[in-house]
Amino acid sequence: MAALAIDLEGGDFGPSRLLPASIQFFQNHPEHSGTLFGSASLQSSMSSLPANLRFEPCAGALPPTLNPGRLLRHEYGSSIERAVSELKQQRVDAVVSSEHTGILMALLHRHGRVHPALDRPVLVSWVPTSKDAMLMLDLGASFSATAEQLLGFAAVGVAIASGQLARKPRLALLNLGVEANKGPQSIRLAAEHLARWTEIDYRGFVEAGEVFQGDLDLVITDGFTGNAVIKAAEGTLDLTLGAIRHALNRDVVGKLLGYMLRNRLRPIMRQLDPRRSNGALLAGTDMALIKSHGDATGVAFQAALTRAVEASEGRWCTAIQAQLDTLLDTSAAPN
Amino acid sequence: MAALAIDLEGGDFGPSRLLPASIQFFQNHPEHSGTLFGSASLQSSMSSLPANLRFEPCAGALPPTLNPGRLLRHEYGSSIERAVSELKQQRVDAVVSSEHTGILMALLHRHGRVHPALDRPVLVSWVPTSKDAMLMLDLGASFSATAEQLLGFAAVGVAIASGQLARKPRLALLNLGVEANKGPQSIRLAAEHLARWTEIDYRGFVEAGEVFQGDLDLVITDGFTGNAVIKAAEGTLDLTLGAIRHALNRDVVGKLLGYMLRNRLRPIMRQLDPRRSNGALLAGTDMALIKSHGDATGVAFQAALTRAVEASEGRWCTAIQAQLDTLLDTSAAPN
Repeated sequence: MAALAIDLEGGDFGPSRLLPASIQFFQNHPEHSGTLFGSASLQSSMSSLPANLRFEPCAGALPPTLNPGRLLRHEYGSSIERAVSELKQQRVDAVVSSEHTGILMALLHRHGRVHPALDRPVLVSWVPTSKDAMLMLDLGASFSATAEQLLGFAAVGVAIASGQLARKPRLALLNLGVEANKGPQSIRLAAEHLARWTEIDYRGFVEAGEVFQGDLDLVITDGFTGNAVIKAAEGTLDLTLGAIRHALNRDVVGKLLGYMLRNRLRPIMRQLDPRRSNGALLAGTDMALIKSHGDATGVAFQAALTRAVEASEGRWCTAIQAQLDTLLDTSAAPN
Repeated sequence: MAALAIDLEGGDFGPSRLLPASIQFFQNHPEHSGTLFGSASLQSSMSSLPANLRFEPCAGALPPTLNPGRLLRHEYGSSIERAVSELKQQRVDAVVSSEHTGILMALLHRHGRVHPALDRPVLVSWVPTSKDAMLMLDLGASFSATAEQLLGFAAVGVAIASGQLARKPRLALLNLGVEANKGPQSIRLAAEHLARWTEIDYRGFVEAGEVFQGDLDLVITDGFTGNAVIKAAEGTLDLTLGAIRHALNRDVVGKLLGYMLRNRLRPIMRQLDPRRSNGALLAGTDMALIKSHGDATGVAFQAALTRAVEASEGRWCTAIQAQLDTLLDTSAAPN
């Protein structure tokens, strides 16, 4: 039983997509409750909310070109600010928003308490592979990472994955080779420490080409590399499918082949698409904040709502804090 | 008319693949000449060399687990050392080898002169896109890069691309967003300088997902990110094609569809495969050293030989030195 705050603004489509998705989710899940935050002009659309869903009118969306830094000093009464405030006052368990990462980071810096083992909140994504989805972090604003930071990311990931899996999480560090002497000092130092963690099934280094094969539960990297790898995979998938489509649309026989292929290939393509697995966690603070893709479909937005329920019921924030406390306390932390 | 030194050892297949490929290349190109370096035990296979190709027997391959650092102090009389020595004595214009990058870097450090604008030789690759191949660097051992280093990579790339293209090269910096305020300070600072370079068509930042769309001639990044992006693209291509193959091999109708598709899709898949474009340049020294993929096919090895001819005829080493001199001389270098 989870109580969620939902930011109806933000993202590419705003309430026109997020409101119907939210209504459907809470109709299907009468055990959970939700508070919708959105522009007062939406009031007339709220006549048919299910009993477990209520609407809080506010000033609406943030200005689209807002510098996130301004949120550290100013308040706009926007939907995301109101939702975060509701979470801070512990009237809900988690927030779901489609706002930009920078906006969400700034609000967490202002209202949350970032764990001292981290420099800033980290962004945890569930990445589809050819088998099960796996956790990957950081996908946030760490442009590079020291060994200490990589171990902090690992602790965050382990806390979540341990709650989701019946086995020890299979964890690997992203590097440019699998041999122990490969890559920068920071990664090699982090590896030495991770090899001694007893709560994981440590798998050493993984190259970017093997990340998506589905043999791992947890891949640790810095935010710059993590973003580059995810985007390169998305781009290649699009390019490959586009090229196939182009080759088939050239003539009648090709079009016929394409028609026969479509239903066969659709489930596989969906399985591999990194965008499919919606709902990233901004982790490492005392507040459970779930980020939905800006262009998420209604179904994908409901996946983000489900992630918020998991975060709430699995008490992820508490588990992460505990794991980060242990990291700071034990000699597992680099000197 | 180029004179090449060819290392027959190294790589996954050694002389059994590299010798026939070399013979074919020099039969097709009587205007060029080649010296093959390989184990003395190969002598009996050399009876039918074309007139423009000769064999120099030596101690053969380096020990497979050799620490590259040992090459700075020891000599093994191996094929790659002999080929590099031939280049150092200016008896050939360029060397082609399938040895590991670390081995080649060590030999360049020992025998070459790295330009003072660079910390170490950089690895320039030609990356296939959905249109023409483009240049990407560094794909070598720079685990991160300062603004100065990024400008050094850009200078190397511009020197080569300017010789290959009839237009100003379209250059972009790899970053995690396209907005000017995105990413680390080093990349934003390099961008400010590149915007003032008159010899390029500067395109700003590019995200990893757009790199392969074919709208750029030159993408600049550090070696760690560059390797991760290339490998993520290779891995995703393999995974996608593997999934399609799996979906088609499930039943008879699928197998029939697969059969009808194969010839249609093969040219596109080949076009997109980052491994197709063989022959990377270890650049930034006074020696033209071309690295072939260890698992290159005979056709791919001939592509690396063609690259070596281009490097020689285009006088890339000299052009790169000049561009790096200009970078050091002008105020284009960051203070």
